Amino acid sequence: MSNLLTMNQLTNEEIHAILEDAEQYKSGQGWKALDTVFVSNLFFEPSTRTRFSFEVAEKKLGLQVLNFTAEHSSVQKGETLYDTVKTLESIGANAVVIRHQQDHFFDDLVGKVSIPVINAGDGCGHHPTQSLLDLLTIKQEFGQFKDLTISIHGDIRHSRVARSNAEVLTRLGARVLFSGPAKWQDPLNTYGEYVEVDEAIQQSDVVMLLRIQHERHEEKASAQDYLQQYGLTKEREKQMKQHAIIMHPAPVNRGVEIDGELIECERSRIFKQMENGVFARMAVLKRALQQIEQNQEVMKHAIYS
Amino acid sequence: MSNLLTMNQLTNEEIHAILEDAEQYKSGQGWKALDTVFVSNLFFEPSTRTRFSFEVAEKKLGLQVLNFTAEHSSVQKGETLYDTVKTLESIGANAVVIRHQQDHFFDDLVGKVSIPVINAGDGCGHHPTQSLLDLLTIKQEFGQFKDLTISIHGDIRHSRVARSNAEVLTRLGARVLFSGPAKWQDPLNTYGEYVEVDEAIQQSDVVMLLRIQHERHEEKASAQDYLQQYGLTKEREKQMKQHAIIMHPAPVNRGVEIDGELIECERSRIFKQMENGVFARMAVLKRALQQIEQNQEVMKHAIYS
Amino acid sequence: MSNLLTMNQLTNEEIHAILEDAEQYKSGQGWKALDTVFVSNLFFEPSTRTRFSFEVAEKKLGLQVLNFTAEHSSVQKGETLYDTVKTLESIGANAVVIRHQQDHFFDDLVGKVSIPVINAGDGCGHHPTQSLLDLLTIKQEFGQFKDLTISIHGDIRHSRVARSNAEVLTRLGARVLFSGPAKWQDPLNTYGEYVEVDEAIQQSDVVMLLRIQHERHEEKASAQDYLQQYGLTKEREKQMKQHAIIMHPAPVNRGVEIDGELIECERSRIFKQMENGVFARMAVLKRALQQIEQNQEVMKHAIYS
Repeated sequence: MSNLLTMNQLTNEEIHAILEDAEQYKSGQGWKALDTVFVSNLFFEPSTRTRFSFEVAEKKLGLQVLNFTAEHSSVQKGETLYDTVKTLESIGANAVVIRHQQDHFFDDLVGKVSIPVINAGDGCGHHPTQSLLDLLTIKQEFGQFKDLTISIHGDIRHSRVARSNAEVLTRLGARVLFSGPAKWQDPLNTYGEYVEVDEAIQQSDVVMLLRIQHERHEEKASAQDYLQQYGLTKEREKQMKQHAIIMHPAPVNRGVEIDGELIECERSRIFKQMENGVFARMAVLKRALQQIEQNQEVMKHAIYS
Repeated sequence: MSNLLTMNQLTNEEIHAILEDAEQYKSGQGWKALDTVFVSNLFFEPSTRTRFSFEVAEKKLGLQVLNFTAEHSSVQKGETLYDTVKTLESIGANAVVIRHQQDHFFDDLVGKVSIPVINAGDGCGHHPTQSLLDLLTIKQEFGQFKDLTISIHGDIRHSRVARSNAEVLTRLGARVLFSGPAKWQDPLNTYGEYVEVDEAIQQSDVVMLLRIQHERHEEKASAQDYLQQYGLTKEREKQMKQHAIIMHPAPVNRGVEIDGELIECERSRIFKQMENGVFARMAVLKRALQQIEQNQEVMKHAIYS
Repeated sequence: MSNLLTMNQLTNEEIHAILEDAEQYKSGQGWKALDTVFVSNLFFEPSTRTRFSFEVAEKKLGLQVLNFTAEHSSVQKGETLYDTVKTLESIGANAVVIRHQQDHFFDDLVGKVSIPVINAGDGCGHHPTQSLLDLLTIKQEFGQFKDLTISIHGDIRHSRVARSNAEVLTRLGARVLFSGPAKWQDPLNTYGEYVEVDEAIQQSDVVMLLRIQHERHEEKASAQDYLQQYGLTKEREKQMKQHAIIMHPAPVNRGVEIDGELIECERSRIFKQMENGVFARMAVLKRALQQIEQNQEVMKHAIYS
């Protein structure tokens, strides 16, 4: 069974295999479900990109989709995540995709349920499919990760993206820089060096902006101040290397992390990241489910022969 | 690309073409999607009829449906309509169907996103697919619009239906009468003449009742008073022309706009309108998407040949 | 047309036919929809098991699913259940599955709408598909109902399950015992004898636990007290007959109705019940829809020949 919980669990080889599958899906090819296979999406937090790119990925793979929403479910009667997933498994779900506000929500599931669990974001923890789509976007641009400089800007401490990406990019041979307010530095994330914003932007092949997660912070920083001190202004964009690109996991706070006019500029890969999200998730679902289908085939042969 | 935003944008010829396509779908024929084509439904206001008749229309056309609900999405994190639609486009939506509380919400989208936008109701503005299903229902009954008298009863000023229908019916050769409380007259809607309710009902081939939109009004009028003064009572129904029909976009406030016993009477086309809504929307989706599929085919040939 | 509203309406023969169809579906065979057939699920109360096992059943049968949620619908504008169902019928739904907080909600529909209504739980009233999946689980275990002793434990008075199951099990030849707090005895449910919990458990082939419905009770009983006085403790489990099994409709309040460690013990059929729910519902949907499809075929022949 192939869970996907964190990027740490994947070897470099596995990552490259997923990226190759994603490219194959982008070209219109790759494994599709032959039989009726069910995937349930459980989103306990609001989401547009991740939620719908999983649904599109599932439907492109020919899977049957069960969209679970907590407020219409027995979670209202106190049912736990474990019992909910166990129920969906009993009913016929062949895999679950879960976003949950609790860090490491999957610790209650792994080894206890017998269907693959795909982490679509756990609290301030991990977001492995976001990392994979980021890697795919970088690979499409530069062909490799080695010797690239990637700066990550913003709230390093609370970002699922910063955590997953810094570790894996370092492991794949890139150099990671961090930049942002001192209070948001993360002593546990040791995969990058903290530098001033202008230096980070001038040195980077990839300027990766993080979203200010207003919904996780009590104070609302002044947008204009943040942009001038830590964000990607039009002036800073002019200092970027000739072939450098801009990335952001979105949703973007226009005029906060980045000047609104840059969001769709030539350097921006922000909407391309979303497009790649579908292909990366198709590859992750394939990894989770292909074996399931093979097992079903084996079982059928065992029953009918 | 074929948006559908208001009825004004459609020529008489285009309207007749849509109605013919709708009739064809009703007979079980017409274009269906060959490939995986995605449509996303974004309803920012409650809806039963419009929402589900779009979903049924989409599924009958073989389309893949993405049902978006604002409260589970990044709209909760402040994402704008433009960024939401742009995201869905990046993820693979080939068209969007939108109901939104803001008049002319589509001004933020047109010319900026590259997929068709279908207006499923904007604030107090327009509701073109409702008009099309109304036209379809009238055409099925009388074969033409010329020389028909159609009276529209109720809150003319706040009604999307009154606005769209009065203009287009006049243009197609019908005579439009308005009737209802003086405070709800609409100085901007010049396509009809205001007359007393009894006169309107006696002269009409089609008595078109509007819904009292309690959710948009602060005061709740006395239901019984409204019915007696402005509504379709059993007495007034007896004064209708022999072949005249009753229409209402629904949901009906039983006993307010119309006596509850008349809702399913022989003259009533209220549930037939709903049935026609599916076919009219299939025709509108065909108009929006057929070209997309042709473009995909062209692209495929360009890639593979 | 084949509604399913209560178990009383089904003869023993009909019950056995449904259970046989369910077994056939479990083995991977049985009727599937040939054409585009729509089913709408209307859940006015939270549900995980019933809601998703209907959706899985529908999709396994090749049906098109319309998931209705009250808060996004015109129910917000005051539309009644009757008008809602009539609307869905007009739009193309071929059957409706409804869970509703009002006892006998279906009295407003039966004889007035012309599509089958399947009751997925009405207030404190009935829950026939739960009974059918319970019967299926018992039949798989013991091959028959005659001479079995089945004890139902807990809130007999407010339980849809207790009501439906006691009547039908008695009718099929089983002996029913009730056990639980005196205040929750049900003078209207005369199909079982009240006994002490230990006696019930020692005599039963099936120990059927009911859920404490905190959402329907104002006071919250002390969980630990309830378990000790009325629940299935580990000590009581040891007193069960050798081949006796444990059932619970779920969601389980772990440590209230049953010791948490027993939920997945060898005797427990709790997750098997959920699995069977899909097959039982497939059989019920087949019963409701097969005829619809035959009628459509007849109509097509009538039209085209």
